[in-house]
Amino acid sequence: MKDLRSLALEVRDGRLRILDQTRLPFDEAWVAVEGPDHMVALIRALSVRGAPLIGVAAAAALAAFAESGVGGEALRAALAELRQARPTAVNLMWAMDRMGAVLAAGGGAAALAAEAEAVFDEDVALCEGMAAQALGLLGSGEAVLTHCNSGGLATAGIGTALGAIRRGWEAGRIVHVYADETRPLLQGGRLTAWELGKLGIPHTLLTDSMAALLLREGRVTRVLVGADRVAANGDFANKVGTYGLAVQARHHGVPFHPVAPWSTVDLACPDGAAIPIEARDGDEVRGYGPWRWAPAASPAYNPAFDVTPSALVTSLILDRAVVPGEELGRGALAKLGG
Amino acid sequence: MKDLRSLALEVRDGRLRILDQTRLPFDEAWVAVEGPDHMVALIRALSVRGAPLIGVAAAAALAAFAESGVGGEALRAALAELRQARPTAVNLMWAMDRMGAVLAAGGGAAALAAEAEAVFDEDVALCEGMAAQALGLLGSGEAVLTHCNSGGLATAGIGTALGAIRRGWEAGRIVHVYADETRPLLQGGRLTAWELGKLGIPHTLLTDSMAALLLREGRVTRVLVGADRVAANGDFANKVGTYGLAVQARHHGVPFHPVAPWSTVDLACPDGAAIPIEARDGDEVRGYGPWRWAPAASPAYNPAFDVTPSALVTSLILDRAVVPGEELGRGALAKLGG
Repeated sequence: MKDLRSLALEVRDGRLRILDQTRLPFDEAWVAVEGPDHMVALIRALSVRGAPLIGVAAAAALAAFAESGVGGEALRAALAELRQARPTAVNLMWAMDRMGAVLAAGGGAAALAAEAEAVFDEDVALCEGMAAQALGLLGSGEAVLTHCNSGGLATAGIGTALGAIRRGWEAGRIVHVYADETRPLLQGGRLTAWELGKLGIPHTLLTDSMAALLLREGRVTRVLVGADRVAANGDFANKVGTYGLAVQARHHGVPFHPVAPWSTVDLACPDGAAIPIEARDGDEVRGYGPWRWAPAASPAYNPAFDVTPSALVTSLILDRAVVPGEELGRGALAKLGG
Repeated sequence: MKDLRSLALEVRDGRLRILDQTRLPFDEAWVAVEGPDHMVALIRALSVRGAPLIGVAAAAALAAFAESGVGGEALRAALAELRQARPTAVNLMWAMDRMGAVLAAGGGAAALAAEAEAVFDEDVALCEGMAAQALGLLGSGEAVLTHCNSGGLATAGIGTALGAIRRGWEAGRIVHVYADETRPLLQGGRLTAWELGKLGIPHTLLTDSMAALLLREGRVTRVLVGADRVAANGDFANKVGTYGLAVQARHHGVPFHPVAPWSTVDLACPDGAAIPIEARDGDEVRGYGPWRWAPAASPAYNPAFDVTPSALVTSLILDRAVVPGEELGRGALAKLGG
């Protein structure tokens, strides 16, 4: 594999390392990936996260495994295992299916490496495509609210929603960013705040529970969020809390936009009800990391994602187009994909 | 003062102690209150919290101070200081104004002690009154969602919203309780979960960001929350996150009820815009207690409360009446108070 480098993934001299995102923002710890099993564990633990990055990282792990000399049987088993590491984001399945097609066509290590490089490079380009599309929507003096992390840590490039925000700020259209902390795993408080700080973008952190008040105060001109899977009718899954934010944005008349690359669109999935939602351990709600503040005996609800119906979407920002919400339910995505 | 005992406040042999709520659920630490300054610090640190309990505790602290032999001047200064310990909840001002009236009428330590006892005893009765009013609304098989803590820890009695939930469960009308964890200070995850566990009430904890999904799934039949101040037109302040929950309940057609004693109604406050909202330190958003997970350099928004307009209220449950939302804007509260 050629050398690759993004904010949270690196291939150098054929060796794959990832930035352990569970240790951000205080520790920037890079972890050498030992093999596909290790990558599965890193994805499940959210050390590697972000729908596009998971796909890129799984492809790179499989290519590195092939380059280590293992045969087709072991590669197919590793691919199947990687493909199921997390159930909601479709980019992982999409990337693994690309790698699977190379394998099925008799491709060896070099072909798999080339495919993983392509997945990486295309993701970088898709990010710029989304940002360019978003820029066409932005007015002046925009203040954008976002949820979770959809930036350089979530992709191989500048990000989806946060990449668009970055380019919007660089273009002088966005003047301030509000970041939901995004309980339970605090991707906003830890990761988005860290990225915005590194980029020097003026921002304010808030708890998820404060977003409605912020919208009511008229401080937000637009909500931009990422997506883990977009169904054929435009319903989309994203980090839990996104749906509530969409309801609140609609109530306050604030435009609401998911931002996603084409690799996140799953035309085989007719609507949001068909998207599998990952349930995670209740300890993530009873505390954070090693810390606990709720009684161990209290059961907790912990869906990692929720589904926002396309009826609440002002427009979906893709790398290749901006699709108005009202067209999503009328098959606009199938036409774009055809 | 006579002996008094509630879940989080105790007077024994004239000595006032409070349960330090910042240390729950793992440590049940009682703190002897040294005097009014100490009580102000305990209120500001949220060791004593809950709109009704703050009023009760401040009254008891002033009475204990009077019983220690200090004179009128020092008592008036202590009263003024206690009255401003927190700005949003009106019960504190209400209780202090009662104590002030006794002082102004020339009352001494015995009269102040009697007034503090009355404030305590009335709060206990008001809680039962709210629960009785709420019971009239409940159907069978109800699953109630609540925010923050409005139980025995927030009052001298069984609580406001959580007291109504408790009696509803005892009556067999409520079968399950969902508790928002209530960032940033986690009163739901720490305190409501602890109370529900002690009472043996079946419950599930969730992050604030999951409430919309729960409502969409049809798992909640009713939302009950406390209030820190109810304006004359029925707009009310409560823990931040309440307003967003009201928007979501309305979107899903789920009845939404603030539950408050008459001491929380502020007829001098025409509407929600006139309620002062306390802003707290950003470190509460960048972490919890001693723990930090967000960059110290990231500014944070931290309003402790938000205001829900009466237009989003299905009905307001008081100790003396249930007032339909549509009547709140037409002066129903002024008539009840007249």
